[in-house]
Amino acid sequence: MNYILKDENAVFFECGYSCDNEILLCIDGVKYFLSDARYYFEAKKLVNHGVIVVLAQRNLIQEARMLLRKLKPKSLVYNPDELSVSTFTVLSKGLGINFKPKANFSQIKRMIKSEEEIEILSRAAKFGAECFDEFAEFVRKNGEGMSERELHFNAQSIFKRKNELGLSFDPIVAINENAAKAHALPGDKILRYGDLLLLDAGVKFNRYCSDRTRTACFDENFNFSKEQKFKNPKHQEIYEIVKEAQKVALDTVKVGIKAGQIDKAARDVIVKAGYEKAFFHSTGHGVGVDIHELPVIGARSEAVIKEGMVFSIEPGIYLENEFGVRIEDVVVATKDGARIL
Amino acid sequence: MNYILKDENAVFFECGYSCDNEILLCIDGVKYFLSDARYYFEAKKLVNHGVIVVLAQRNLIQEARMLLRKLKPKSLVYNPDELSVSTFTVLSKGLGINFKPKANFSQIKRMIKSEEEIEILSRAAKFGAECFDEFAEFVRKNGEGMSERELHFNAQSIFKRKNELGLSFDPIVAINENAAKAHALPGDKILRYGDLLLLDAGVKFNRYCSDRTRTACFDENFNFSKEQKFKNPKHQEIYEIVKEAQKVALDTVKVGIKAGQIDKAARDVIVKAGYEKAFFHSTGHGVGVDIHELPVIGARSEAVIKEGMVFSIEPGIYLENEFGVRIEDVVVATKDGARIL
Repeated sequence: MNYILKDENAVFFECGYSCDNEILLCIDGVKYFLSDARYYFEAKKLVNHGVIVVLAQRNLIQEARMLLRKLKPKSLVYNPDELSVSTFTVLSKGLGINFKPKANFSQIKRMIKSEEEIEILSRAAKFGAECFDEFAEFVRKNGEGMSERELHFNAQSIFKRKNELGLSFDPIVAINENAAKAHALPGDKILRYGDLLLLDAGVKFNRYCSDRTRTACFDENFNFSKEQKFKNPKHQEIYEIVKEAQKVALDTVKVGIKAGQIDKAARDVIVKAGYEKAFFHSTGHGVGVDIHELPVIGARSEAVIKEGMVFSIEPGIYLENEFGVRIEDVVVATKDGARIL
Repeated sequence: MNYILKDENAVFFECGYSCDNEILLCIDGVKYFLSDARYYFEAKKLVNHGVIVVLAQRNLIQEARMLLRKLKPKSLVYNPDELSVSTFTVLSKGLGINFKPKANFSQIKRMIKSEEEIEILSRAAKFGAECFDEFAEFVRKNGEGMSERELHFNAQSIFKRKNELGLSFDPIVAINENAAKAHALPGDKILRYGDLLLLDAGVKFNRYCSDRTRTACFDENFNFSKEQKFKNPKHQEIYEIVKEAQKVALDTVKVGIKAGQIDKAARDVIVKAGYEKAFFHSTGHGVGVDIHELPVIGARSEAVIKEGMVFSIEPGIYLENEFGVRIEDVVVATKDGARIL
């Protein structure tokens, strides 16, 4: 299959290197890495891995077009989500090549992780969990009276570890009713003893992402363990339902079942407790070089779970203007079921 | 003109609000803001400004398609750089509407800033400059022996001011030979007295960007003023050339001239000094809600400078494996020439 890739993470997956301006072409089994003068020196190392490195003398798309004109492949697969209309027009016009749109072809390729990738994802998860503990200590000591905005700022700092790690995404730090918003932005709300605090955060290590959510009660023993004692009985009630839903979903993971069955397992617990409408997102998503990859762990997902797939399990219940609870771990599917990374 | 916009900053410019999932349609002078349930409550405030807010029941592109089917405009302008091939295909197929590609039509509209915008850009620039001073103080006190990576981490923190401000872009903090790379990534290099330090950084205030670069000598009096005394005579020689090039370019700014003339003014100084090839980028770029807007201040830029245009003036000289110098300010074009923000 001949193909073109432009997405930085997709290119990294193909050849172990990427910068912020590149195109990867694969024609008749040969990979061509196109970049500009700023990155040429670094990129040239790829030659050792059998990749042909092309220093672009003009705009990258023009350069790719010239190369295609020279190599004359009959067809070329591209991701129509990745190329803009103008990029596609400049690239393809009048070349006489059959351009085949294939959504997510790189994501599909990346769905089953190698042992090496699982090792890196495990280390990312380990670092991420350590940062949860560091942040918990920070909140325990300094959290009382602190605004969401300040908590969020400190979460960013802690999870970056002086830039030794990257952030998988901007952390979500939300108190009480703000935790009921699936995409809460940090505000002026002040943290007080007895409040519920939700943290959804992850780090990037060697380009691979971690992802985790905990919901906890803020008190003098504040921590992010899954055993939580809330001051507010309703917080506790909802928390136990979500915890049970997550546990059941984790126990359901098995090689050979459909992803939709995992979603159903979590959803059934929540529906049975009477909170069907309060769980309005999918149970999980693949995790790798992108924070959201395949498979989708959703109600309609027909994807079959295979050994080496890595994905999140993150049911939640969101009660508008009250509070929200979500618990999330990333797991790898093994012969023995889900193993939390 | 009927048009569709998807870019967050372009949408914000049109109606003063944006989230991270929206489409703006303007048909027969009426603006329609399409978003999902997460943002509906906030977005509904737009009704007060005559915008029709549409709560999407499905994927936003599908929703926009349904609305277009109902409203039946004859033609619709779109930015081919903004829409992916798949988005455009889903949106346009079989609707019988004449879709007109028009690159940068929002950027062109935003090129001349209003008085209110200039006021906000001035405040952003003022905050940005304050952060330069704060960072200088930090480096003066703690810089000796600190790695680029740590300096970069601290620059990020200082410029965000506990998240009261956003970052226009990831700051560039580069020592000596790393400053010769136009897009330096922070590394393990350690700062020592006598080193050259380049900082390129900006903040976002009320969605508008600041942008500034200073190159300075690290010593006990370290600061980011334009008057610098370098220990290394070659640093000083190159610094004075760049400073002169920037001054001449600033003095050239005048309503009615072509942007290319500003670039030429800076470039002539550098060419005359014998460093033609060491200044390999444009002299500047527009600044607004995007960090890179129109006009381009480049050698081939035919754009005519008009009152209210806001852009950077940032010549540089980069000597590979040695060091680099860049000096940048953002200016507004006025009847009396350039005014530094």
